[in-house]
This record gives sequence, C-alpha cells and structure tokens, in this order.
Amino acid sequence: MVHSVAEIAAALGARFAGDGTLAVGGAAEPANAAVDQIALAMSPKFADALSDGAARVALLWPDADWQALGLEAAIFVSHGKLAMAGITELMDPGPDIAPGIHATAYIAEGAQIGADCAIGPFAVIGTGARIGTRARIDAHVTVAAGAQVGDDVLLHSGVRLCGAARLGDRVIMHPNAVIGADGFSFVTPEPSSVERVRAALGDENEGRAQKWQRVHSLGLVEIGDDVEVGANANIDRGTIRATRVGQGTKIDNMVQIGHNVSIGEDCMICSQVGLAGSARVGDRVVLAGQVGVNDNIFIGDDVVAGGASKIFTNVPAGRVILGSPATKMSSQVESYKALRRLPRLFRDVAALQKAVSKTGQSD
Amino acid sequence: MVHSVAEIAAALGARFAGDGTLAVGGAAEPANAAVDQIALAMSPKFADALSDGAARVALLWPDADWQALGLEAAIFVSHGKLAMAGITELMDPGPDIAPGIHATAYIAEGAQIGADCAIGPFAVIGTGARIGTRARIDAHVTVAAGAQVGDDVLLHSGVRLCGAARLGDRVIMHPNAVIGADGFSFVTPEPSSVERVRAALGDENEGRAQKWQRVHSLGLVEIGDDVEVGANANIDRGTIRATRVGQGTKIDNMVQIGHNVSIGEDCMICSQVGLAGSARVGDRVVLAGQVGVNDNIFIGDDVVAGGASKIFTNVPAGRVILGSPATKMSSQVESYKALRRLPRLFRDVAALQKAVSKTGQSD
Amino acid sequence: MVHSVAEIAAALGARFAGDGTLAVGGAAEPANAAVDQIALAMSPKFADALSDGAARVALLWPDADWQALGLEAAIFVSHGKLAMAGITELMDPGPDIAPGIHATAYIAEGAQIGADCAIGPFAVIGTGARIGTRARIDAHVTVAAGAQVGDDVLLHSGVRLCGAARLGDRVIMHPNAVIGADGFSFVTPEPSSVERVRAALGDENEGRAQKWQRVHSLGLVEIGDDVEVGANANIDRGTIRATRVGQGTKIDNMVQIGHNVSIGEDCMICSQVGLAGSARVGDRVVLAGQVGVNDNIFIGDDVVAGGASKIFTNVPAGRVILGSPATKMSSQVESYKALRRLPRLFRDVAALQKAVSKTGQSD
Repeated sequence: MVHSVAEIAAALGARFAGDGTLAVGGAAEPANAAVDQIALAMSPKFADALSDGAARVALLWPDADWQALGLEAAIFVSHGKLAMAGITELMDPGPDIAPGIHATAYIAEGAQIGADCAIGPFAVIGTGARIGTRARIDAHVTVAAGAQVGDDVLLHSGVRLCGAARLGDRVIMHPNAVIGADGFSFVTPEPSSVERVRAALGDENEGRAQKWQRVHSLGLVEIGDDVEVGANANIDRGTIRATRVGQGTKIDNMVQIGHNVSIGEDCMICSQVGLAGSARVGDRVVLAGQVGVNDNIFIGDDVVAGGASKIFTNVPAGRVILGSPATKMSSQVESYKALRRLPRLFRDVAALQKAVSKTGQSD
Repeated sequence: MVHSVAEIAAALGARFAGDGTLAVGGAAEPANAAVDQIALAMSPKFADALSDGAARVALLWPDADWQALGLEAAIFVSHGKLAMAGITELMDPGPDIAPGIHATAYIAEGAQIGADCAIGPFAVIGTGARIGTRARIDAHVTVAAGAQVGDDVLLHSGVRLCGAARLGDRVIMHPNAVIGADGFSFVTPEPSSVERVRAALGDENEGRAQKWQRVHSLGLVEIGDDVEVGANANIDRGTIRATRVGQGTKIDNMVQIGHNVSIGEDCMICSQVGLAGSARVGDRVVLAGQVGVNDNIFIGDDVVAGGASKIFTNVPAGRVILGSPATKMSSQVESYKALRRLPRLFRDVAALQKAVSKTGQSD
Repeated sequence: MVHSVAEIAAALGARFAGDGTLAVGGAAEPANAAVDQIALAMSPKFADALSDGAARVALLWPDADWQALGLEAAIFVSHGKLAMAGITELMDPGPDIAPGIHATAYIAEGAQIGADCAIGPFAVIGTGARIGTRARIDAHVTVAAGAQVGDDVLLHSGVRLCGAARLGDRVIMHPNAVIGADGFSFVTPEPSSVERVRAALGDENEGRAQKWQRVHSLGLVEIGDDVEVGANANIDRGTIRATRVGQGTKIDNMVQIGHNVSIGEDCMICSQVGLAGSARVGDRVVLAGQVGVNDNIFIGDDVVAGGASKIFTNVPAGRVILGSPATKMSSQVESYKALRRLPRLFRDVAALQKAVSKTGQSD
C-alpha cells in the first residue's frame, strides 16, 4: 500500500507542500513513525513528538510551519479524525483472502457465487445461497442454504449466516458474528410467572409449573447496505416478520439484537448493547456501550443514550438520556448530585427536628 | 412444509371452519400474507389488515366472523401466542443439514455416532465422543474428544463442545455457543487485592505483587433434556464438581454461566445475563436481559428479576426483584420515585430552615 | 494422569503421611470421590463428607487427624485454594490435540510452524504467520496471514487471530475468542450527535444527517506472556498504535477490549466487562463481572471495581469502587442506605412542615 504524498493529499482532498513524490508505506504516531511512514500530527500538541520519530512527511494542522518541523513534505487537514478515516482507508490492505474460491472451501450445488469473489479455506456456502460480486468470505465462514449476500460484502472468519439472512451491499461482518439465529421466544399454556408479575406488579410470585413451549422463528433478517456488525455480535431472525437493520448503521462487538427488532439508518450501536425482542429504534440513534433496551420499546430518531443506560420506556425523538432507569440526562445528573448531598440532608433534617422540638417547648 | 387447513387445526387442537383442504405453505402477518400463507390474526385488532394481504385462511380469535372477513377458511384459537408456538413449529423446516455424515466432516476413530444423524461439512467429532440418534450437527461444529450428546440434539454451526460437555436429549444450541470452556478461577499465594478488600471493606487497596495461579477445571458440564442455549453463549465446566443446567431451561444469546453454577429446571435466562462462579439458581427462575448474579449467590425457586438487575445477595423463593443492587420491585420503584422528588425535598428543607430560623429569631 | 501420593505432595510442596505409593487418578469433592481419587477436604467442615465417598487419600488441613478419618494417606496444605491450583494442574490432561499437524489442517505457504506443535483438524494458518514451539492449536482455529504466536500457546477451537495479533508465550485462548478485529471507530464530516451532545450537555439533540465514515484499523494487538483470554471474548486492534494487554493478565469470557486500550500486568478482568476505546488500565487492577469503562478513561494500579460498576471518570491508584456511576465503595454503600431511608425522610419533612406551620400560626 505505497502511495506518494501527492496521491494521499488528493485522496483526502487536502493541500500539500514540499516533495509530493515522497513514497509513504504506512501511517504512525509522530514519535513512532518510521522513515517511510507518514506521521499523524493533526494538532500542535503533537509537534514536539515529530522529532522523536523518523517521519519525513506528516499530516499537519492547517497553518503549521512544516519546514520548521524538519519535514520534507506535509499535508494540511482541518478535521483530524476525518483525515484519519481517509488515510487509514488508503493504507489498509484489508484481510488477506486470496482471489477465487479456495480449494478446501465447500460450495454446495445450487449456490450462486458472484464474479470476482474471494472465498477462504473451509468456508461453506449452502444450497441456494446467493453471493454478490466481489464479496470476500474468509476462512471458516458458514453461509447457510438460502442466505443472500450483496456485492462487495466482507465476511470475516467464523461468521455464521443462517438461511434467513439477507445482506445488502458493502456489509462488513467481523469474526464469529451470527446473523439469523432463532429468536428467544417461548410461551406457557397457563400464564407464566412473567405474565403474572406484569399483571399484578407485586413482590411475590407464586410457584407454578411452567413448561416453556418454543415459538419457532420463520422471519428473515434484513441488513441494509453499508452496515457493519462487530465480532461475536448477534442479530436474531424475526418470528413472522423480519428483523431489520437500516443502511449505514454500525454495530459493535457483542451487541445483541433480538427477534423482530427494527433499527433505522445511520445508527451507532456500541459494544455489549442489548435490544430485546420487538424493540423499534429510529434513524441516527446512538446507543453507547452496555445500553439495554426493554422489549417492545420505541426509541425515536436522533436519540443519544449514554453508557450503560437501561431503557424501560419509550423515548421521544432527539432526547439525550442516561442512567438506570434512563431519564433525561440532566435529571439523571441532578439525581446523582442529590444522592451525594443526601447524608447532609439527613443531618439538616435531624437538626431541624431538634430545633422545632425546642421551639415547641419554648412556646 | 405444506399442510392443509384441517391438518393445522388438528395439530393446534383447534376448531376450523370453511375449506379444510386448502393448502398452506407458510405463515405471515395479515397485511403481508401471500395467497398460500395463513394470516396470523388472533385478535380483532388485526381484522382490518387482513384485506391488505392475500391470505385465504387465517388464525382468528374464537368468535370471529370469518366469512365477513372474506376468508375461505379459518382456524379459531383462544391463546394467540400458544397457537404461534404450534403453527411456527409446523411451518419451520429447520436448518438444512443433509442426512448422513458429510464427506468433508472429520470423525475421529472411536467416536460413536448414533443412527440417523446428520453431520455437516467440516464438522469435527473427537475420539470417544458419543452422539445420540437423530442428532443434527451443522457445519464447523467441534465436538471434542469425550463429549457426550443425547438423542435429537441440534447443534448449529460453530458450536464448541469441550470434552467435559454432557448434553441431554433434544438440546438445541445456537451458532458459536461454547459449552465446557475452563472456569475463570485463579489464586495468589498471598491474599489478593480482592481478598483483602473483602476482608477490610475499605476504600483503598494497597498495591502488592499478585501473580495469578491457575486453578484448572476438571469438572463436567451437565445440560439437561430440552435445554436451549443461545448464540455465542458460554457455560463453563466446573472445577471439581459439575456445572449444571436443569431440564427445560432456556438460555438466550451471550449468556455467561460460570464454573460450578447450578441452574434448576424450566428457567428462562435472557440475553447477556451473567452468573458468576458457584451461583445456585432454583427452578422456574426468570432472569431478564443483562441481569448479573454475584458469585456464590443463592436464588430461590420462582424468582423473577427485572431487566439489568444486579443481584449481590441471596434471594428467597418467589421474590420479584429489580434494580442495582436488586431489591424487592416495589422498594425499587419507591426509590426511583423518591429520587425524582429529591430536588423538591431539598427546596422544602431549605424553606423550613429559613422558617425555623425566623421563628427562632421572633421568639 | 496417575500420580502417587508422594509425587502429588512433592508437586504441592506439602507434607504427606501414610502410604506415599498410593496411585491417584483424579480429584473429587469428598462425598463423590471414587476409590482412585484424592478427596479435596482442606477444611474441617468437609471431614464428615469423607465417609460418604470412597477416597483412600485426601488433601487435608494442616493438623488434621488423617487416621481418625479412615484414610490410608493424606497430604496437608495450609492454603486450600492454592493447593487446588497445584493439584488441578497435575490432574488436568488438557485438550486432546494430537501431536503434529492434522492431515486436514491448511497451512499456507510461508507460514512458520515451530517444533513440536499440535495443530487440529481444519485449522488454518495463513501466509507469513509464525507459530512458536510446542504451541497447541485446536480444530477450526483461524490464524490469519501475518499473525504471530509465542511458544507453548494454547488456542482452543474456533479462536480467530487476525493478522494484527501478536501473542506472547504461554497465552491461553478459549473457544471462539477473537483477537484483532477492527476497532469501532467512525467519524462524520460535520459534528455528529455525540459530539454536539458532549459540547452542549443539553437534553435535546437536533436531528441532522450523519453518515458514518470508517476509520480503518492499522494497529497491532500485543498480548503479553501468560495472558488468558476467555471464550467469545474480543480484543480489537488499535487504530495506529497497538492495543496492549500486559503479561499475566487474565481475561474472562465475553470481555470486550476496544481499540487502543492499554491494560497492565497481572490484572483480572471478569466476564462481560467492557472497556471502550483508548481506556488505560494500570497493573493488578481487578474489574468484576459486567463492569463498564468509558472511552479514554484512566484507571490506576491496584484499583478494584465491584460487580457491574460503570466507570465514567478517572480512578486513582488503589481505589476501591462500586456502583453506577462508580464512586468510592463506602460512598456508594452510604447512598444505598440513604435511598432506603428516603421514604421516612419524606415523612419526617412533611411532619416538620406541619409543625412549623403550626408554630408560625401560634405566634
């Protein structure tokens, strides 16, 4: 992945100065950069570290004096993290999956493999599965019979696509993620303890036999274009209708998305989040790490939920929430503060009781 | 999976009306039902949607006027979700695992494979492992040497059974679940920071070297009949005695069950629950999503724990609990309400202080 | 794994009495011990159970009267759990991976396999990967091109090592763990809702288009010697610099370690813990189950965090913390108590208001 300074600048839509022909073979933090790497120093605070490394070229802030920094070339960017997106994309060779179908892969009869696919060792593609063009499927991936995969999809090793999976184009799935396992749905002939507790809202649950009968899953899992799914994450298939994830939504490692859940577009669902069955989530929603969403909850567009928020009730569009149970962020912060001041409040009330009792006596 | 209306009614133990010979090839929500599908409209609120779909037959509530709904046949059920269990079971073709042992599977010498098994591509069955009759083992499953699997078990792709695994009959395991990994158990020659903190209950922990020595796991994992284990879930083997899950218990995706844990029968353990080592759980217990259970805790029969409850102390049988730390549900709800009213309480106390101070002065 | 009593005592550095030549083929709880097993009865409370089992030899507390317990031999230990570490290590045969490279494994050209390795069925070792001596790699493991694995490493079935993985010596990885998946890092050209909320700290987030652009991961994952990683756990690779786990640190099942995270030596990270991107953790830190750590947080040496603590701010060395948001343990316990006394406080304040209002009227 060697690029010239001028090529990198063009890819970033950025201005460069100095020797545009310098060859760059990688990117590094300023202090650790090797002589063929570009140093990422997009803020003046990284300037000093440049001299600790060996980089001859750097990504710098807009008005940096690159020559004073001892560089032979520089590229100037105003949005550091956006430039990171561009330059890391340029430098990323991606996983090493040889073109074509590996000799050890097992492609069932009737599977349709698109042009220019790369399929790794011991991958399995089941009967009737359809794989789009230029898809890359790494070692040990299982694509079950009937699953459908769009163009330019990348499935890392150990991914499991059940037959109900429908993946759009450019979907990325990280190792050991599972799409389309059966939903967790059971019913008891008589009301179960959960149903009785929800009805009575009491603190005690009478013991009664409950044998769980399985509600089988017949629904699909529809994953939109440009979705990314993290390692060891799970998206269950729907019961009758489909579980859906809208295009552009990014899902981190070990996220649980239950059956019948619907998630909108361009959401960000961070690691270890759990969405229980039939939850509905709007567009551009951000759920930070370890957030929990109760079943059948509705979360409006543009909601932002802080880390470990536990969401038990519907959330209107645009709301910023926090805590367990989650409330408006400001209420939660107020509660935390109040909790910390509580011991003093107890002392104040005790003092008042004394004073009032005295006042009463002195009357 | 085509069935006649009369067959479906018989399987559900339900009454039908109209053309019992109509062929049904699937189930769908009323608005989306195709002409060969049965519409699931078990409540009057779904009646209107029937005309949006093309279904000629529907599952209806007991006294529905099926002819007025424009249907050619109808099946009447009083418990909608129970009927869902029946009809989805009928319509579910299950995973597509070809009968017999796939040519690419590796069966070690000395493994015992029961009659009528289906074993998929690249599955591995180790030496001395025993697989019951009619078991279905999907692609990429590992059954380690010595593991035992009952009759009619279904192991989805990527399941890992370590040698300590003992599975009853009809167990279902979803993709990438792991049974029998080593427990997380370590010890330091001198008291570790955790032991010192538990003894002192102070806020500060003095730094001292602590090199963790491994306690190896020699115990089994015994999984009862009719247990279901979710995708990417883990049940660790015991140290000396077995980790146990009782028959009929259902375990969702990404649940963690630590070493030596004992879980009773007919429990429901929802997604992302974690049970630390040596926790004991009774029968018919329901733990909602993201519940945490401390090590060595005892949870009685019929306990119901709400979403994200964190359980640090023993829970008596039949108790309904919530919160972190978990308490009786009613106490928790009272605490939430009190927290919300706190800012007003602070204002009230401030006003009282003013009033009392004035009263004092006016004396 | 048969050892004589004398051999076991020597391995534990412990004193024995009675017949040192007795052959021991396993370890068990006193009540369940078979005739060829050593009973683990390191405390007087287990004495009675010995007669329920068939053991002829036991691990006993230091001054136990072994002959009165009807034993033929005994080993005396003062630190029961430490002795468990020793004896379980001695008795553990480990996973059954045949020596050498299994005929079905796929070793790419240019992979370097150390001497005396054991590599199981359908394992994949990519181009340029380096595997140390005596490493054991179980069935269905993927070692991607370029990954490096130290000596005496044990990779259980379904482990995924991406190309960025660098593993020290004696590392143990449990089934389906993933090392080196891409970090979860995205950026929007305009400020995203998260950036706007962090800047404004308001309760409402205005809806605006946000298309996530991917920051690719180019960094390594460096795992020190003697690290253990649990089943289905994830350690993502760094963006530019490496994600690091120091030697001797133990990581449980389903732990999430985000990109750029740095963890020190001899830490204990329990199940379902999540560390968001760029968090830094010192040495000997203990994070109990389900702890969450915000991104970019610093946690000092010797910190101990109780179960389900959610850590949003930096934690000084040696601090013992609990709760969500996590605070000093004692403050948290005080808050819990105060919360429980709140209903009474409300009643007290109401009574005071009545009394003061009367006092005012009586003036």
